[in-house]
Amino acid sequence: MIKRKKTRKIKIGNVFIGGDAPVAIQSMCNTDTRDVEATVAQIKELIQAGCEIIRVAVPDMEAAKAIGEIKKQINIPMVADIHFSAEYAMEAIRQGIDKLRINPGNIGDESKVVMLVKACKEKNIPIRIGINGGSLEKDILEKYNNEVTPEGMVESAMRHIKILEKNDFFDIAISLKANDVERTVEAYRLLSKEVDYPLHIGITEAGTAFRGTILSSVGFGILLYDGIGDTIRVSLTANPVEEIKVAWEILKSLGLRKRGISVTSCPTCGRTQIDIIKLANKVEKMLDGMEKDIRVAVMGCVVNGPGEAREADLAIVGGKGVGLIVKKGEIIKKVDEKDLLEEFMKEIEKF
Amino acid sequence: MIKRKKTRKIKIGNVFIGGDAPVAIQSMCNTDTRDVEATVAQIKELIQAGCEIIRVAVPDMEAAKAIGEIKKQINIPMVADIHFSAEYAMEAIRQGIDKLRINPGNIGDESKVVMLVKACKEKNIPIRIGINGGSLEKDILEKYNNEVTPEGMVESAMRHIKILEKNDFFDIAISLKANDVERTVEAYRLLSKEVDYPLHIGITEAGTAFRGTILSSVGFGILLYDGIGDTIRVSLTANPVEEIKVAWEILKSLGLRKRGISVTSCPTCGRTQIDIIKLANKVEKMLDGMEKDIRVAVMGCVVNGPGEAREADLAIVGGKGVGLIVKKGEIIKKVDEKDLLEEFMKEIEKF
Repeated sequence: MIKRKKTRKIKIGNVFIGGDAPVAIQSMCNTDTRDVEATVAQIKELIQAGCEIIRVAVPDMEAAKAIGEIKKQINIPMVADIHFSAEYAMEAIRQGIDKLRINPGNIGDESKVVMLVKACKEKNIPIRIGINGGSLEKDILEKYNNEVTPEGMVESAMRHIKILEKNDFFDIAISLKANDVERTVEAYRLLSKEVDYPLHIGITEAGTAFRGTILSSVGFGILLYDGIGDTIRVSLTANPVEEIKVAWEILKSLGLRKRGISVTSCPTCGRTQIDIIKLANKVEKMLDGMEKDIRVAVMGCVVNGPGEAREADLAIVGGKGVGLIVKKGEIIKKVDEKDLLEEFMKEIEKF
Repeated sequence: MIKRKKTRKIKIGNVFIGGDAPVAIQSMCNTDTRDVEATVAQIKELIQAGCEIIRVAVPDMEAAKAIGEIKKQINIPMVADIHFSAEYAMEAIRQGIDKLRINPGNIGDESKVVMLVKACKEKNIPIRIGINGGSLEKDILEKYNNEVTPEGMVESAMRHIKILEKNDFFDIAISLKANDVERTVEAYRLLSKEVDYPLHIGITEAGTAFRGTILSSVGFGILLYDGIGDTIRVSLTANPVEEIKVAWEILKSLGLRKRGISVTSCPTCGRTQIDIIKLANKVEKMLDGMEKDIRVAVMGCVVNGPGEAREADLAIVGGKGVGLIVKKGEIIKKVDEKDLLEEFMKEIEKF
């Protein structure tokens, strides 16, 4: 079992992150925030897929003003992503935002920081400091040979953290996103030794669904297995619903969260005599969204089949044009390939 | 940079694994090995995708006899996957196989092991001992409360290793595949402390392309980042070509191998004003198979865009209905959205 690093617990709307709270899954809308209808529709789709915290971009005052209306129509906490403007942040707070992602070092002079921190404290609104490799401060870049380094990213984070701490504000989460696995992992490892604020894990600009899924799985896997990470956001150049699906699968693969039914299935080989690829995909699709605590396996042959089936609650083991249905290691039925899916689903329903 | 554990180097046909050799990528045919034409066609497709070692199932004598004919038509090393039969293994050796995957503890009495080891030694054919959670020995299962544990898997591996070592055979690779991340990672970590044979990394029965990609990326990521793993096989219930694509992307994400051009692209958000998802996917597709040492980024807006573009050799940064083409941090063109792809590809060609 993974031993998670114990971080400070913070509250975002009705969701906790850090401490003993489960690793929370978040995404970001790619709709125009000013378009309330489109944004709400996307958030509802994301909630359906398992999104627990949603972020929206707030690039102007009109977007900030739309927050209240959006919030009325959704039931998960909402984060405003703001750059350089204490004014948009103040408006987001007035509109009932649950968390701000804003870097206090670049919103203006000290009076603005004081104003913002005061408003956040009054409403218990946490701030995420979000460091991105692509937007490091010039002097930090110069210090590190004009390269984006894990050390430089942590230095930037500490600078923003200190501004908030100086103002007696500790309701903080931090992210340190580079666009590759190594710098991201090293940055989080370094920061995790320095502070106990909850960490929001992400690899930025990870790429399309294919590449981004792999980069995020590799990077998050390394960090989470080390116990680092309190909330995750998978970044994909794709429909954000895909981000949520990938995030869940990563957390499930590490035993950090549970959701739905996972299907163990074999890669098939020259020994396989029924169409396992088609069958496994169909089984996975039919189980999608079903909430049962049940382990399912779809195996091609008798080499590893029976062993895997023993660990599953219900399994298919393929033979020549037929399949065995196996329940907790016992063969309960031998079925023609054409009836296999239907018979198997009956057993699932019964379980 | 990842510091890889230094393992013993072995040679499989013309490919080295272990030692300072790059992490090799392998897959397994799901054709009927007896069908030479279909098997060769699949192997050629896999080679095209980047497969470096190919394994085939040898469930009977006819399959073993087909190996010679298949080998004549391909140019990567071939591994025979054999269970319980020294006779099929002997035939595979006669047919010129480059490596055997066989567990010496279950091929019969000592005379058979002696015979097989002698034949392998004469032709410098390495043996992979392949432990699968689904087929652990009964007495080992019983010892561990009838559960598949990392300790039990390592114990099983050591048993087979000792049989070979007793026969003065050290041309060995080992795999320890469980169907989940945690047991797989812990088993490899344990074994890696015990032996210096090269390790073949895999998660067995990982599932369909979606789930299997994530499980493998998470598990391999943890191990490879630790320096463990000399060759990898991603198991997917899918066309094995997908296994190769995923394997390459995992190794590339960790800087362990280089191939083709990777596209950094942002997840898009409410700030994006051109269709970055479509654009990034098109760019990725057009670059597929192109071998240039060039870093490419496709970014939606000016918040992180310019920073990311600075790290890329060529980048697109989106604006309102237009895109900037940026070369090593300098804006070289401002182009209408409709001409962006074409203009960008021109710059790629020029590079």
